[in-house]
Amino acid sequence: MPHVALGPGREFDRVRAVQAALGPAAAGLGDDCAVLPPAALAGAALVVSTDASVEDVHFRRGWLTLEEVGWRAAAAALSDLAAEGAEPLGLVAAVAVPAGAEDAALTELMRGVGAAAAAVGTRVLGGDLTAGPVWAVAVTVFGRAERPVTRAGARPGDGLWVTGALGGARAALEALEAGTAPAPAARERFARPAPRIAAGRWLAAHGATAMLDLSDGLGGDVRHLAAASGVRLAVALEQAPVAADAVAPARAADVPVQRWVAEGGEDYELLVTLPPTFGAAEARAFEAATGLALTRIGAVERGAGVDVRLAGRPLALRGFDHFG
Amino acid sequence: MPHVALGPGREFDRVRAVQAALGPAAAGLGDDCAVLPPAALAGAALVVSTDASVEDVHFRRGWLTLEEVGWRAAAAALSDLAAEGAEPLGLVAAVAVPAGAEDAALTELMRGVGAAAAAVGTRVLGGDLTAGPVWAVAVTVFGRAERPVTRAGARPGDGLWVTGALGGARAALEALEAGTAPAPAARERFARPAPRIAAGRWLAAHGATAMLDLSDGLGGDVRHLAAASGVRLAVALEQAPVAADAVAPARAADVPVQRWVAEGGEDYELLVTLPPTFGAAEARAFEAATGLALTRIGAVERGAGVDVRLAGRPLALRGFDHFG
Repeated sequence: MPHVALGPGREFDRVRAVQAALGPAAAGLGDDCAVLPPAALAGAALVVSTDASVEDVHFRRGWLTLEEVGWRAAAAALSDLAAEGAEPLGLVAAVAVPAGAEDAALTELMRGVGAAAAAVGTRVLGGDLTAGPVWAVAVTVFGRAERPVTRAGARPGDGLWVTGALGGARAALEALEAGTAPAPAARERFARPAPRIAAGRWLAAHGATAMLDLSDGLGGDVRHLAAASGVRLAVALEQAPVAADAVAPARAADVPVQRWVAEGGEDYELLVTLPPTFGAAEARAFEAATGLALTRIGAVERGAGVDVRLAGRPLALRGFDHFG
Repeated sequence: MPHVALGPGREFDRVRAVQAALGPAAAGLGDDCAVLPPAALAGAALVVSTDASVEDVHFRRGWLTLEEVGWRAAAAALSDLAAEGAEPLGLVAAVAVPAGAEDAALTELMRGVGAAAAAVGTRVLGGDLTAGPVWAVAVTVFGRAERPVTRAGARPGDGLWVTGALGGARAALEALEAGTAPAPAARERFARPAPRIAAGRWLAAHGATAMLDLSDGLGGDVRHLAAASGVRLAVALEQAPVAADAVAPARAADVPVQRWVAEGGEDYELLVTLPPTFGAAEARAFEAATGLALTRIGAVERGAGVDVRLAGRPLALRGFDHFG
């Protein structure tokens, strides 16, 4: 869709600059609404999620470039589509710009939003600009899913699995908070998380019964999944896949590394329940298709709540609380 | 759609409180995504818009209750759907809550969001909560349109029309900024604008060629419409429908009242171009169907830009700039 020709005015000057920076990562900006033709849904369900990132709550300016702030905000929202097994159709971004910020700063942030969208094959379809006391970005994503996977479908007997490796984001966050330089891979995980769109779609197509993305940390998110599905989740935490960069900080904190990674947030890996027939061969097929590990860390049982154990010993995990 | 059962945690306590406050104005909160079944679109285009409201930029706390802040934020976004001729399917809201705010303050704000949604027959389908330095709400609305009406379709020969009456929001805003009490009808227009959903759908079904909602004021928005459609708009400003509450402040400012209302923003009426065959009889049918006036204020011509005249004398109107 071509961009709409814009009238005069300061806000429109900024929209024009954003359009130019986004190039093909944007489509049809400038009207009251973004419009997707009926064929975009083509009989699938419409799936929508919104996610806000606020300066000094979710990030500090000294930690991230504005391009990374934009990427991370978009990736966090796209990760919710991944957790639903959905294919992205587009996103819109409402951005608050602090007084005195250069137009170049806004275009840098929006370039990050556009890059995260383009990385999963989708585009920026619209937005809203406003002044504000700090940088803030609310990204709303929408997608299509033939078979949306909610948090509510786990059944006793299912296996509990997790994609990728955990703890990289916490390793980066703690280094940044301590004023030291994170390891490059950990920093990348924190600054430019990759929404697991392909993984989520593969899992949805291969029987996933419930799924969510690990934004609150494994410790918190297993409880959310158990509550939504009305089941008990038994977690063998020693099975949790650990990012290499998590080992040293866990040792320095004198905490078992699997516990340390389970109490960190924002890895944006997928936590998924799969039927009992899903085993090692299917996990290898997933890895071949996506390039990501898929690790069984527990089982779904009748009951309520969670039973997290590390080498057989019960453990009460802290969740990671964004709100505060 | 039933709500998803929620796990423990502070953020989820807040979501639970919001669910309880919204009642039937919310649906299916608590999952990663809101999901709408394929039948919701049923062959129509998907139409999406996002709109942010930030404390001390779009409103001051002393001017509005939090319920009104929520209503106004949702209504501003829904107004974009109205301008596309779309039927709302739902909305999501990302809310930043200042440190120290009571949970009751958040539920009050969300009650306003839910009430604005319910007033046009739709619901809150999801959201995101975060801390922030001030109250801020980003509302993203989505809807369906058999025939989306953009800003780009005006053709030479079309008439230029406007719904309702203008200037109430400016009258309220100026009173509030001066520390005086606005007239009740003007205050209502500012605090609880009514998204013109039914009017927009009626106009889309009766040949509207281009449409937008008057958020930047008639002075700015005629230029946006002219630019998007690649036409010239000739406006006979003496025809502009004036809200009763605008008369006294315009007189006090020693400005012709039609000019005064055209330089105010946020009335959220619709500016629409209609084919030459659309005349007084059709306008009466619109008024019978919607209870709103529909007034012809000008014509679409070949060319570019705008030609605004008041009683024949050319006039350069200021737009109303939200950004700043």
